[in-house]
Amino acid sequence: MSDLRRTSVQDLLRSTELDREVLVKGWVRTRRGNKYVQFIAVNDGSGFNSIQVVANAEQFPEEKLKADGVDNGAAVAVRGKLVASQGKGQSVEIQAEEITVYGTADQDAYPLQKKGHTLEFLRGIAHLRPRTNTFGAVLRIRHAMSFAVHKYFNDHGYFYIHTPIITGSDAEGAGQMFRVTTLSDTKPPLNEAGAVDYSQDFFGKATNLTVSGQLEGEVAAMALGKVYTFGPTFRAENSNTARHLAEFWMIEPEVAFFDLQDNMDLAEDFLKSLVRYALEHCPDDLQFLNDQYDKELLNRLKFVVENDFQRLTYTEAVDILKGAKQKFEFPVDWGTDLQSEHERYLVEKHFKKPVILTNYPKDIKAFYMKLDEDGRTVRAMDVLFPGIGEIIGGSQREDDLQKLQQRMQEMHVPEEDLWWYLDTRRFGSAPHAGFGLGFERLILFITGMANIRDVIPFPRFPKSAEF
Amino acid sequence: MSDLRRTSVQDLLRSTELDREVLVKGWVRTRRGNKYVQFIAVNDGSGFNSIQVVANAEQFPEEKLKADGVDNGAAVAVRGKLVASQGKGQSVEIQAEEITVYGTADQDAYPLQKKGHTLEFLRGIAHLRPRTNTFGAVLRIRHAMSFAVHKYFNDHGYFYIHTPIITGSDAEGAGQMFRVTTLSDTKPPLNEAGAVDYSQDFFGKATNLTVSGQLEGEVAAMALGKVYTFGPTFRAENSNTARHLAEFWMIEPEVAFFDLQDNMDLAEDFLKSLVRYALEHCPDDLQFLNDQYDKELLNRLKFVVENDFQRLTYTEAVDILKGAKQKFEFPVDWGTDLQSEHERYLVEKHFKKPVILTNYPKDIKAFYMKLDEDGRTVRAMDVLFPGIGEIIGGSQREDDLQKLQQRMQEMHVPEEDLWWYLDTRRFGSAPHAGFGLGFERLILFITGMANIRDVIPFPRFPKSAEF
Repeated sequence: MSDLRRTSVQDLLRSTELDREVLVKGWVRTRRGNKYVQFIAVNDGSGFNSIQVVANAEQFPEEKLKADGVDNGAAVAVRGKLVASQGKGQSVEIQAEEITVYGTADQDAYPLQKKGHTLEFLRGIAHLRPRTNTFGAVLRIRHAMSFAVHKYFNDHGYFYIHTPIITGSDAEGAGQMFRVTTLSDTKPPLNEAGAVDYSQDFFGKATNLTVSGQLEGEVAAMALGKVYTFGPTFRAENSNTARHLAEFWMIEPEVAFFDLQDNMDLAEDFLKSLVRYALEHCPDDLQFLNDQYDKELLNRLKFVVENDFQRLTYTEAVDILKGAKQKFEFPVDWGTDLQSEHERYLVEKHFKKPVILTNYPKDIKAFYMKLDEDGRTVRAMDVLFPGIGEIIGGSQREDDLQKLQQRMQEMHVPEEDLWWYLDTRRFGSAPHAGFGLGFERLILFITGMANIRDVIPFPRFPKSAEF
Repeated sequence: MSDLRRTSVQDLLRSTELDREVLVKGWVRTRRGNKYVQFIAVNDGSGFNSIQVVANAEQFPEEKLKADGVDNGAAVAVRGKLVASQGKGQSVEIQAEEITVYGTADQDAYPLQKKGHTLEFLRGIAHLRPRTNTFGAVLRIRHAMSFAVHKYFNDHGYFYIHTPIITGSDAEGAGQMFRVTTLSDTKPPLNEAGAVDYSQDFFGKATNLTVSGQLEGEVAAMALGKVYTFGPTFRAENSNTARHLAEFWMIEPEVAFFDLQDNMDLAEDFLKSLVRYALEHCPDDLQFLNDQYDKELLNRLKFVVENDFQRLTYTEAVDILKGAKQKFEFPVDWGTDLQSEHERYLVEKHFKKPVILTNYPKDIKAFYMKLDEDGRTVRAMDVLFPGIGEIIGGSQREDDLQKLQQRMQEMHVPEEDLWWYLDTRRFGSAPHAGFGLGFERLILFITGMANIRDVIPFPRFPKSAEF
């Protein structure tokens, strides 16, 4: 069968050229049938649907198929004729002429042999779960969203910047960091004060894994104008929740000459374009997730595309929350950060649509956000999504050197670590803005999955770095 | 000027709609002129070329411009009329009506004020070098190549897989690794043997930064069929050379049902498509690099697109090298790894084109490569490029469980760390192949730059993790 070129299952399923010889390679999902005919579903990962292979018992007796290992999980090549299907559920099928088994899967040992595994069980076999319907769908959607991100920015004149993963400073103060070192773990060199002498470490200083590429992104935006990052970021927080990962991917556009209004427009257009891309490019995978896990998924996605996000200030939101009839666990007061319950009330009950909150009190936001004229709030924006909460956080940045230095002093951010960042305000400073989108939060929203560990191939969280 | 929407410099330069009011925002590259008229070159990063702003001395006397800081490095907004240029070197220019300065750059303090900086000097101000012609060009090309990578794979039905950055095992044995930890650096918990007790570390085990996503990529390929990774990888090697980085980006496609031949076809088609994309999408930036640094750059790129790569086995290459008239520093003997001088002889002198070497001796290659029938060589392939040497390394993978286990034993790769990897050969194993492309090596080739530290925004190397 070597002269015949292989066709992907998806191409076969879309094919209108029938009654021709085809070659397909993939894995057996199911084999069923009777003593006259066996039906073998073959999937090669190219899409959600498998192709049905019809094996006539005269040429392929059930005992022979079984003995050869043509069973759930086996890798096979099938040569045969592509014909219109006589059964329900598919338009074409393959009449098998030759079946080759590359690798079998012992049905007693194969962890995926039985149906209806829990998502938790599948997390323990993350190396096999991409073979299931659910994770095949999630990973294909994850790919589609990654590509949609790059395509959106490329089409709009942005340049992709690879910001460093290993960093010499905890610039954002965004949380606990992972230390990166090559020093001896039991006998590191010490200085006179008895502390570890990091001048002898690989980089000549203490280094950590990045929590954000934003500051380097700002540097690039002040030269290339419109840039974005898309890379891994890290938090060493002991959060064993369905919403946190120790290693996750983040998208951070940063744009020179953008103000808060431009930033909101970008965030809304960007998110809508991503959702629209998923609806257009992943209909089969989304339909399965909608039917299997979340009957409101497709409606929710369409709703986001079709409706304007509600924009209001933090101060206006506090007024709404104070007037709400609902009882909250945490009290709402101007100056305190909003809790998840408050955000959900605004998005899911009050406005019933995505919300962009702006102009937060300066004390609950990062040092680099631009001060409003009132001196009390900053030009921050959070985009809140139904079921997810904050999906985007961003701001216009402080472009005034002295105001920035003052905020750094007030918030105890050491200037000597960020001399290069301050240089962008010393030389040719300009208004600019940007935001961060947690990629896994996006995938949670798009797939309707409930646990963030189920939307990344190999999740990293406390006590878990397997695979 | 707020009602007028800003246009990018590149869009203005391409515009055929003249004699209209426009608004441009960017940074001053140069200001020159006389007492009648001043010429201000404004660049916003959107492309290589700046737009010329013509400022009439009646409205904009030189002293006034100088006092306002309209000088090299300043961020400005210019409103004016887009007209056909009366000078040479550009087709359109802006007759200034209003100039607003956002941020000045003190000409005595600004490090980029003088011309002709060395690349080495610019490495020390990596936060400002994107504002230079050279690094603007390099970073725009880097973006174009990133996008071309994603586009190629997306167009060809591959799925992007984010493989983990933090890993529990040194799977490939590819070199020294960076340790990742949150334990105390001076008083880590010890076990009874006096070693650090990593069961108390964040992940419950010792963890490092990944050297390759290949093994996880193989896992994904055995479910999704065609996948690729594109992410950061790390080597803690004390290599202070123009060819090594401690942190770099790698692209690793992995394809089920591919053999070595398919793998070579993919590598050649992929590389050619990337070079073609650069030639089509980055003509201005490439022309500048060609003229400034490497007069053969464009010819070399075109040559790669237009010619087939030479394919031969390692054994054939050794015969050629043994028969060569050239004296080598290192002797050539079957079984030893080829040195850079040998690779360059084959590519630059003997064949005068890119070369794919295959079927290397098993002892100089990794444990996961598929054994040839002779039991002495493996189905490896290295793609060698002029001026670069090895740009791609790959192989068909060993898909036979027992042969793989035997190679792991021989090469002292612990099975218990890779139980999940071995599962892919236990359940539904299939032929598959893939390769790794060092992204910065690619950018070196495309840009003609000589030092790998000049093709990544913020290079990481021994004693350097600044910015």
